[in-house]
Amino acid sequence: MAVSKGSEPWILMVTARSPTNIAVIKYWGKRDETLILPINDSISVTLDPDHLCTTTTVAVSPAFDSDRMWLNGKEISLSGGRYQSCLREIRRRAGDVEDEKKGIRIRKVDWERLRVHIASYNNFPTAAGLASSAAGFACLAFALAKLMNIKEENGELSSIARQGSGSACRSLYGGFVKWVMGNDASGHDSIAVQLANESHWDDLVIIIAAVSSQQKETSSTAGMRESFDTSTLLHYRSKVVVPRRILQMEEAIRNRDFQSFARLTCADSNQFHAVCLDTSPPIFYMNDTSRRIINCVERWNQFEGTPQVAYTYDAGPNAVLIARNRTAASLLLKRLLFYFPPSPDTELTSYLLGDKSILEEAGLQSMKDVENLQAPPEIKGGISVDKNSGSVSYFICTRPGRGPTLVVDEDQALIDPRTGIPKFPNMDSSILQAQIRQQGDDVTVHLDMIIGFGSWDFSPLDLENPFPNNEGSVHLWHGDHDLMVPVSLQRYIAKKLPWIHYHEVPAAGHLFAHGNGYSDAIIKALLLGEKWGQ
Amino acid sequence: MAVSKGSEPWILMVTARSPTNIAVIKYWGKRDETLILPINDSISVTLDPDHLCTTTTVAVSPAFDSDRMWLNGKEISLSGGRYQSCLREIRRRAGDVEDEKKGIRIRKVDWERLRVHIASYNNFPTAAGLASSAAGFACLAFALAKLMNIKEENGELSSIARQGSGSACRSLYGGFVKWVMGNDASGHDSIAVQLANESHWDDLVIIIAAVSSQQKETSSTAGMRESFDTSTLLHYRSKVVVPRRILQMEEAIRNRDFQSFARLTCADSNQFHAVCLDTSPPIFYMNDTSRRIINCVERWNQFEGTPQVAYTYDAGPNAVLIARNRTAASLLLKRLLFYFPPSPDTELTSYLLGDKSILEEAGLQSMKDVENLQAPPEIKGGISVDKNSGSVSYFICTRPGRGPTLVVDEDQALIDPRTGIPKFPNMDSSILQAQIRQQGDDVTVHLDMIIGFGSWDFSPLDLENPFPNNEGSVHLWHGDHDLMVPVSLQRYIAKKLPWIHYHEVPAAGHLFAHGNGYSDAIIKALLLGEKWGQ
Repeated sequence: MAVSKGSEPWILMVTARSPTNIAVIKYWGKRDETLILPINDSISVTLDPDHLCTTTTVAVSPAFDSDRMWLNGKEISLSGGRYQSCLREIRRRAGDVEDEKKGIRIRKVDWERLRVHIASYNNFPTAAGLASSAAGFACLAFALAKLMNIKEENGELSSIARQGSGSACRSLYGGFVKWVMGNDASGHDSIAVQLANESHWDDLVIIIAAVSSQQKETSSTAGMRESFDTSTLLHYRSKVVVPRRILQMEEAIRNRDFQSFARLTCADSNQFHAVCLDTSPPIFYMNDTSRRIINCVERWNQFEGTPQVAYTYDAGPNAVLIARNRTAASLLLKRLLFYFPPSPDTELTSYLLGDKSILEEAGLQSMKDVENLQAPPEIKGGISVDKNSGSVSYFICTRPGRGPTLVVDEDQALIDPRTGIPKFPNMDSSILQAQIRQQGDDVTVHLDMIIGFGSWDFSPLDLENPFPNNEGSVHLWHGDHDLMVPVSLQRYIAKKLPWIHYHEVPAAGHLFAHGNGYSDAIIKALLLGEKWGQ
Repeated sequence: MAVSKGSEPWILMVTARSPTNIAVIKYWGKRDETLILPINDSISVTLDPDHLCTTTTVAVSPAFDSDRMWLNGKEISLSGGRYQSCLREIRRRAGDVEDEKKGIRIRKVDWERLRVHIASYNNFPTAAGLASSAAGFACLAFALAKLMNIKEENGELSSIARQGSGSACRSLYGGFVKWVMGNDASGHDSIAVQLANESHWDDLVIIIAAVSSQQKETSSTAGMRESFDTSTLLHYRSKVVVPRRILQMEEAIRNRDFQSFARLTCADSNQFHAVCLDTSPPIFYMNDTSRRIINCVERWNQFEGTPQVAYTYDAGPNAVLIARNRTAASLLLKRLLFYFPPSPDTELTSYLLGDKSILEEAGLQSMKDVENLQAPPEIKGGISVDKNSGSVSYFICTRPGRGPTLVVDEDQALIDPRTGIPKFPNMDSSILQAQIRQQGDDVTVHLDMIIGFGSWDFSPLDLENPFPNNEGSVHLWHGDHDLMVPVSLQRYIAKKLPWIHYHEVPAAGHLFAHGNGYSDAIIKALLLGEKWGQ
């Protein structure tokens, strides 16, 4: 059994950070639902974790009674097959662990009985079509492997992450990554391999458009099952089209051939959505805004004669736009802000997140500069341009980035080393926009985006009740989703801010579903009162 | 040479009426662009010409100097290859014609030198995705064949209409029609055949949703060329998927098997749009409203366990919904009006066109009944329903109908028998909605739909100037299109109604493009002053 020198119960923790990734040759369709084995290879670009990442702390202690997990501050069940597969596969490979400083020794055999606590946070909207589950399961596998001292060989870890969420296997590497479908029924050869690291092609700039949507989306798990069962085109795609494209894409990446890269990326995104449409009943992930963005890019690429930007869409309406270089990216940004200006009263810096330096390169200092943007030259004079203010929630500027990393600063751990449960939301969530509007008796708090981690002290509280006479209510929402607030915080807020009215959204089947990572931001918005009383 | 007993110049005329059709197994992709030979068979349902049709008068006279054509009152060029092909192929087959009453005799050889005048009107919006070119070229071929006394054999006429617009060949028959792709390079075996006439399956009720759209659409000619060149999925579809579906659809129609009919119809519509999306650059014909209609139908069909309604979309956002019977149609109508209520102040009878008796069966007498519609049972309690008022311009209720017919009443001819040019708009266009709104100095005339032909006397005029002090202007539009008014009418109106302000929309490349068939309705709306001054 695990031992410690002292008699006090000990806790051993590891914190890691993992990137998300965007497929440029898409994964759609499984040949094995349980093991998550795909029907074709796929290729992705890892996105810079500075802008989009999951942070996960895993802790082990003989005092823990059961495996537990908190996602974005809320405890979730680990009973699902996907979590169980990951935990089982990881435990099977666990090694001896010794922490001399803390005087802890855990033998290989101890891991079967030791329970773990897991706390995980996304610094971007969960289930907003930004591959939160890919980053999440990659981070879980990576952090547990470090905690349990697993000697990883031959992409074994990616094979474990894959069993949590298929595309998670690709988030275990930085840069350009191929998920080899494999042949074996056991799935041991269905692993991710790095094609090139992030510095191989560092000209690329990625702009993500978070597209507003009211439609309930089909989960990718259900969607690919339905496509597999009903789309006649899917099987032709996976057998005939994709193998050819994989070779071409590998070559394009190897040669940093943007023209081929863009052509293949756009064609494969479109074909993936074509297959969704060929499903019965049809699945629609893109909406009218997604299509307007495609038209904007296609028109510009055609005008230039050679592609400046590639677009790709996952199982949602958000666009991921890959510009050939920073010059193209700043020209793209101008176009995007011209066609999709922010709603009135939005700060420009809260409309473009991530790498904001691109704003300066585009010569955009303020909203006035955005308002003064001229129609791009590919728009012929006389054609009326319809501007779509409000149809994009925000943009994120990022780039290809590195794979998972350990977070060595113990202060950044998400679990309290004394209690073994998550710290109270110990994050510095930069609130990019917190608009509070009052209409009659109702107040709406609109938080536009939260990004970035860090520490933020909860007290002393500096609150004022906006309804001294206790009338009215506050409705909390983010984009089109009602916000979820962890129960612990609900009690806290209920005590401190009795005028808040909650709308609980029942969790969907998918564990990483729904926008529930905003508790800290709500509180900060309310406590700090940004734009209070507007 | 043609002779007549008298010395006066004679004119011989034929007027015909042709239906439009909607494909349930789609035609997309040509193996020969000039002859318009398809890469797969297709199957369509002919729509009742009482609700949607083209009327065409063709006239011949030794006094005519050149072939001329007027479409919806406006003269258009006949120099395009498609018109030239039709005229050439028709003339080649012309026979001897004798009109004893008029004392006219035309020999076979005369036709090469005789010129024709053609006047054509659609009773529905041109190029609104309602296959106006199918009805148009079918009617042209049919009327010319009658005029020139062509003995039609083996679908030869459909082969000629095909060279004007591929799907036109299917409009030469009523009921259920198959366009056999044929094998010969000459195209002589690429013809339409009737699978069953309209009485074979007369339970079916068809509701068309005219979906509002701001997007410029890719013409189907350009679209299918691009798909042919760039979509890898199209060729698999045409070679492997469609041949199987054709057999299944023929069987479904033969057995009046609605379940199979609906499954195949929906799947093939979705696959056609999937192939459009797989094209580079991608082509989008459906928009968010189209998708909401699909979701409404899919949800209901799933709830019932067996399909009640099939949907299909051509190269545009309009939905064609085929209900299994009148009961299903009235339940469908309730759902459509629940999700897509008309804009405020719209008369119900101007929001549902065509066969209005379905309203009574649905128990909908007034807008109040529409407002009181309950959410359908397939919507679970608690789910918020988003209603989309204004996203559908109008609905048309129709049914499978007959093929082309001769119009024997000479008063209904579109060409003046004395002058040989089109009569001044001599039609009884029922204006279904003419809303006139004044805002500040501007007045908007909103005409929702015109349907039906007949005679309408232009004078005496009974006009009142809505701006006695001569301030303000009237902007004419239909749906999202500015209205086009023939030059002759412009002059007329300018004289009579000097306060009207025109917006001319340049004609697009496609001859049947843009909503330009409303001149008569504008005038009637203005002259008769329906809902005047609201």
